[in-house]
Amino acid sequence: MVIVMREDCRKKQVGEVLAAIRRRGLKPRMISATSRVVIGIVEDLAGSLVEELRSLILQMDGVESIGTFGASWKLVSRSFRNERTTIRVGSSLIGGPDPVVMAGPCAVESREGIMEIAQAVKEAGAAVLRGGAFKPRTSPYSFRGLGEEGLEHMAEASRMTGLPIVTEVLTPEDVPLVARYADILQIGARNMQNFALLEAVGDTDKPALIKRGLMATVKELLLSAEYILARGNSRVMFCERGIRTFETETRNTLDISAVPLLKQHSHLPVIVDPSHAVGKRELVSAVALAAIAAGADGLMVEVHTNPDKAFSDGRQSLTPEAFHAIMRHVPAVAAAVATAYNGGAQ
Amino acid sequence: MVIVMREDCRKKQVGEVLAAIRRRGLKPRMISATSRVVIGIVEDLAGSLVEELRSLILQMDGVESIGTFGASWKLVSRSFRNERTTIRVGSSLIGGPDPVVMAGPCAVESREGIMEIAQAVKEAGAAVLRGGAFKPRTSPYSFRGLGEEGLEHMAEASRMTGLPIVTEVLTPEDVPLVARYADILQIGARNMQNFALLEAVGDTDKPALIKRGLMATVKELLLSAEYILARGNSRVMFCERGIRTFETETRNTLDISAVPLLKQHSHLPVIVDPSHAVGKRELVSAVALAAIAAGADGLMVEVHTNPDKAFSDGRQSLTPEAFHAIMRHVPAVAAAVATAYNGGAQ
Amino acid sequence: MVIVMREDCRKKQVGEVLAAIRRRGLKPRMISATSRVVIGIVEDLAGSLVEELRSLILQMDGVESIGTFGASWKLVSRSFRNERTTIRVGSSLIGGPDPVVMAGPCAVESREGIMEIAQAVKEAGAAVLRGGAFKPRTSPYSFRGLGEEGLEHMAEASRMTGLPIVTEVLTPEDVPLVARYADILQIGARNMQNFALLEAVGDTDKPALIKRGLMATVKELLLSAEYILARGNSRVMFCERGIRTFETETRNTLDISAVPLLKQHSHLPVIVDPSHAVGKRELVSAVALAAIAAGADGLMVEVHTNPDKAFSDGRQSLTPEAFHAIMRHVPAVAAAVATAYNGGAQ
Amino acid sequence: MVIVMREDCRKKQVGEVLAAIRRRGLKPRMISATSRVVIGIVEDLAGSLVEELRSLILQMDGVESIGTFGASWKLVSRSFRNERTTIRVGSSLIGGPDPVVMAGPCAVESREGIMEIAQAVKEAGAAVLRGGAFKPRTSPYSFRGLGEEGLEHMAEASRMTGLPIVTEVLTPEDVPLVARYADILQIGARNMQNFALLEAVGDTDKPALIKRGLMATVKELLLSAEYILARGNSRVMFCERGIRTFETETRNTLDISAVPLLKQHSHLPVIVDPSHAVGKRELVSAVALAAIAAGADGLMVEVHTNPDKAFSDGRQSLTPEAFHAIMRHVPAVAAAVATAYNGGAQ
Repeated sequence: MVIVMREDCRKKQVGEVLAAIRRRGLKPRMISATSRVVIGIVEDLAGSLVEELRSLILQMDGVESIGTFGASWKLVSRSFRNERTTIRVGSSLIGGPDPVVMAGPCAVESREGIMEIAQAVKEAGAAVLRGGAFKPRTSPYSFRGLGEEGLEHMAEASRMTGLPIVTEVLTPEDVPLVARYADILQIGARNMQNFALLEAVGDTDKPALIKRGLMATVKELLLSAEYILARGNSRVMFCERGIRTFETETRNTLDISAVPLLKQHSHLPVIVDPSHAVGKRELVSAVALAAIAAGADGLMVEVHTNPDKAFSDGRQSLTPEAFHAIMRHVPAVAAAVATAYNGGAQ
Repeated sequence: MVIVMREDCRKKQVGEVLAAIRRRGLKPRMISATSRVVIGIVEDLAGSLVEELRSLILQMDGVESIGTFGASWKLVSRSFRNERTTIRVGSSLIGGPDPVVMAGPCAVESREGIMEIAQAVKEAGAAVLRGGAFKPRTSPYSFRGLGEEGLEHMAEASRMTGLPIVTEVLTPEDVPLVARYADILQIGARNMQNFALLEAVGDTDKPALIKRGLMATVKELLLSAEYILARGNSRVMFCERGIRTFETETRNTLDISAVPLLKQHSHLPVIVDPSHAVGKRELVSAVALAAIAAGADGLMVEVHTNPDKAFSDGRQSLTPEAFHAIMRHVPAVAAAVATAYNGGAQ
Repeated sequence: MVIVMREDCRKKQVGEVLAAIRRRGLKPRMISATSRVVIGIVEDLAGSLVEELRSLILQMDGVESIGTFGASWKLVSRSFRNERTTIRVGSSLIGGPDPVVMAGPCAVESREGIMEIAQAVKEAGAAVLRGGAFKPRTSPYSFRGLGEEGLEHMAEASRMTGLPIVTEVLTPEDVPLVARYADILQIGARNMQNFALLEAVGDTDKPALIKRGLMATVKELLLSAEYILARGNSRVMFCERGIRTFETETRNTLDISAVPLLKQHSHLPVIVDPSHAVGKRELVSAVALAAIAAGADGLMVEVHTNPDKAFSDGRQSLTPEAFHAIMRHVPAVAAAVATAYNGGAQ
Repeated sequence: MVIVMREDCRKKQVGEVLAAIRRRGLKPRMISATSRVVIGIVEDLAGSLVEELRSLILQMDGVESIGTFGASWKLVSRSFRNERTTIRVGSSLIGGPDPVVMAGPCAVESREGIMEIAQAVKEAGAAVLRGGAFKPRTSPYSFRGLGEEGLEHMAEASRMTGLPIVTEVLTPEDVPLVARYADILQIGARNMQNFALLEAVGDTDKPALIKRGLMATVKELLLSAEYILARGNSRVMFCERGIRTFETETRNTLDISAVPLLKQHSHLPVIVDPSHAVGKRELVSAVALAAIAAGADGLMVEVHTNPDKAFSDGRQSLTPEAFHAIMRHVPAVAAAVATAYNGGAQ
């Protein structure tokens, strides 16, 4: 249930609506960022209670209208919040007018390595440094990252370059540790439906980037983000990174239509990871620029100064030069579509 | 086997190589469009014959080098022809520097209807008129198109607007009839592996547009085009129109990475059909502009002056106004990536 | 619309109903095999015409009830015919109490080869000989079968062993030729939506086996069979042969649930091809026996006396010995589920 | 690396080999259940170390041969252990000659409900009681299970019926709690690559049932089990429960070929969950019996005394009567294939 207050409503009137909701044992949620006060109730309500609340609240002072959520996702929906959410990280605004590019290695491999790469991606125009310290690996015998040591190297690279950090967290227990270092907490594709992890991230005050699972529908991705928002953390961004299909020429198949779909259904920003989607560096640039043209709010790109020696994902990592070449085209593509998606659905 | 002649080779030398190949009962194929003479042999050859031919031909005058095809597709490959193929249709050059947009209704429904739509898409900047007279339908009880009458309406709309026509042909027997009216013969997704149809189209001198099957890999699409080229018709273009995946929010999933992949493997132009891929008109523009940004040589878009009354595919058809809105952004996006894909893989 | 006549209705009454339908310009279809007279009208009717016909016919003598088709498939549906269809081929009854096994090579490679294999599969208990004379091939440069010569070898093997023949037909033009030799016309997976071919097969009086396309839904398969029945040929059987998924350990993924699903929706028999589904001979037996346990009416299995030298599909072809081993278990599995699927949905 | 000792080797000789391995800082793993002593080293070794170890150990007394693992999974592989693993739970032997059927509701909803269902499935022949106390839910607003209270109800139903319990655990933190009540710890499909959870379960001494993820290949499933075995818990069973495909008539697509594939690659038992695979109760029996025919070691079936009132998954839950009907056919199907899969691949 979504309650929209009148533009000229008074604080006291808002308080009375909130109190009326709380008296029924429900928890009202305020949407602070919109130009007028909107109050949401996300609990599933019995039909009789809906009717009772509706008739009660509609006659209260300062209330303009009452609506319902159109789908099973609520806090992430545009019914709940019609303005686009922006997330400030360092000096970048994710979800704002300009695309934000996150770049770096798949895994932090050494202090020197991450310093060198951080410097290179900054020079090419990246706004956020990516890199994994805790790596989910299909096999228990593969390199699983440097752990906290990797986070420390990331932090040092961040101090040197001024780039904020996005890095993955794998388990609820690690959330406090990773949150000490990271500016954005990444939830990986395999963990998109690790609900305990989603809730642990929802309990922090850090922006979260949630990657779409390899076989997750857009609807499921929206509901996973809902888990985070339902805990009070509303600074969430989606990341489309390819889904699993029958095609074997690419590592996965980037679902480019997920960009407008997510923006149609939700007010949250959408990032695209072309590297994991295609799995071959020679295809990254076309897919990256396509994502910007489709209206993505940013990119997450794997870059390595020596891709062929990378511990993981070297085949899809760009050299700094190749990354730089893409970055030269990003602003022009973004400008070319700047006015394309202003209205309704997009 | 690919034989590259020296830049300064003489006609007589080329003739001697051709004769040597024919004496083995093989059929040499000339590649006329490249800056130097290249001769291909597409038959599968026994290892001993390869060796014999290689040592024989390498010592002939005017021969520079001998290579092999890297994959099971040959005539469509960049080993066979490294320059990009362009196809002139009316006043447009498909595969050239500017994207070519084909637009029109799913099916030709009436003379008046197609005239009206043709006028509208022309005004918006389309270069080719699309429309189906023979429609493949999942159910035998659905509208299957007006047949030859539909072709006549298309022809009249073409005369009025000057737009050339692309239309689908369903069976080998219909090829001569459809070829009398069409400027481009379309092979639909369901017929991508209808090999008799591919060969019948390969026996004409009309440009062909071959749509990727819902279940087809990029490799299989390349081999289907190979069927057409192997019959002597080398004016073929691919059309990516979405593949079938688990996602149900969109009609299909557009495989945006197929654009750079096809261009990496083949010299033929690549068109993208965003309408069938997404199946919802509000998603078409984002996917269309993404395709241009990925380097597509053109678009094929469904447009209808009254989408809600369309006999088929109305849900994904754009109004002329919405189509016009996309067209305003196409040149800027194309310009933004104009220099992005010159080198290496693309 | 489905009209069920009373058990004791007279011929004259049936005739009057048929006449009433024909007077509206519609074509009534009789279902002869059921214990009572049922008349179907498959045309899509306007709501007003439905109402008019219903009230008219319901009051005619001998009419018991009037129903509607529940889905877009009609003649193949159990609304149209509630008893299971059986198809007699040689001395076998497909769709009857015992599973019918079709076996043989992927392609007919030589007269001697097919004679030897036919003898071997007959000895192992196969009831129908399979083998391809016209082969659809992904690449234009692959072996495409012996053509009519292959059909002649098949016919000779059939005369020798008494086994009827199932073989694929690729194009509408070839239907008369193939129908002269074949006892069952096979429509391959790639041609499941080659509607001209479906109609050409529908115009013959030969039983048809229609394979599910690699990315065709069960609903689409039902509608493709509808094309054949709509032309008057009602002796059609389905063949599940695996769909395309992300799994690469097997050639395709056999959709075992398609067996009960097809039987729930349709009265036609269901065959399973385990060989193309798994693509590895060591997995064939488990999947074959699973199909029988799921209620399949038969199997289609690739057998070759020298699999490693087969021109195609050798990796998935069984030796006669391995085929024999499966056949020893088929009757026991069939007996174990004989009473499992009698009722309602199955 | 796999070291096979001679049948007549002495304990001291085994000890010397173990000591030689430990001196290199490696951890040898014993396989106790086989008829002869086999020692495995699962660490990835540099080529030079492999050579050094091989020549050293081969000349030691009592050593018969040295092999390598053929794939990235090791402890789960048949290279490591060629005999089939059996797991005793209560009075049942999972992986033994007779299929073991686990049945019960999706979620424990009340004390009375689970008692009633437990009684019913026991009478029908189930050997293990399933039921969820902690439920992973796509939406944060859905019923997530009764938690520990649900476990207590399960325990009471277990005491009453004598049936051991299988129930899901969602997070590493919950493992000790759930392990106090459960006889088998279930890892759900969404958690198949929740590596922290796999390791926590690997640290217990409870048998584990690991469900294949909707998007997981058979290879990935094997590697997820490897995580559990690598921690010392070797009592693991797989559960195939359907993968996600384009087909929408069923909830998922059961990959029947996964049964022989898993048995070809691994020594661990394979269970099949037909309920989640098909999602419609009328299809469960065919798929369940198919699984037994394919060689599955057991079934996991959803049963509810009042499916239409179930909190979740009611559409796919069987009534006790329908479950009973399946159970009557299971032994006969198992007997029919009892000798089918003894040799080679299976």
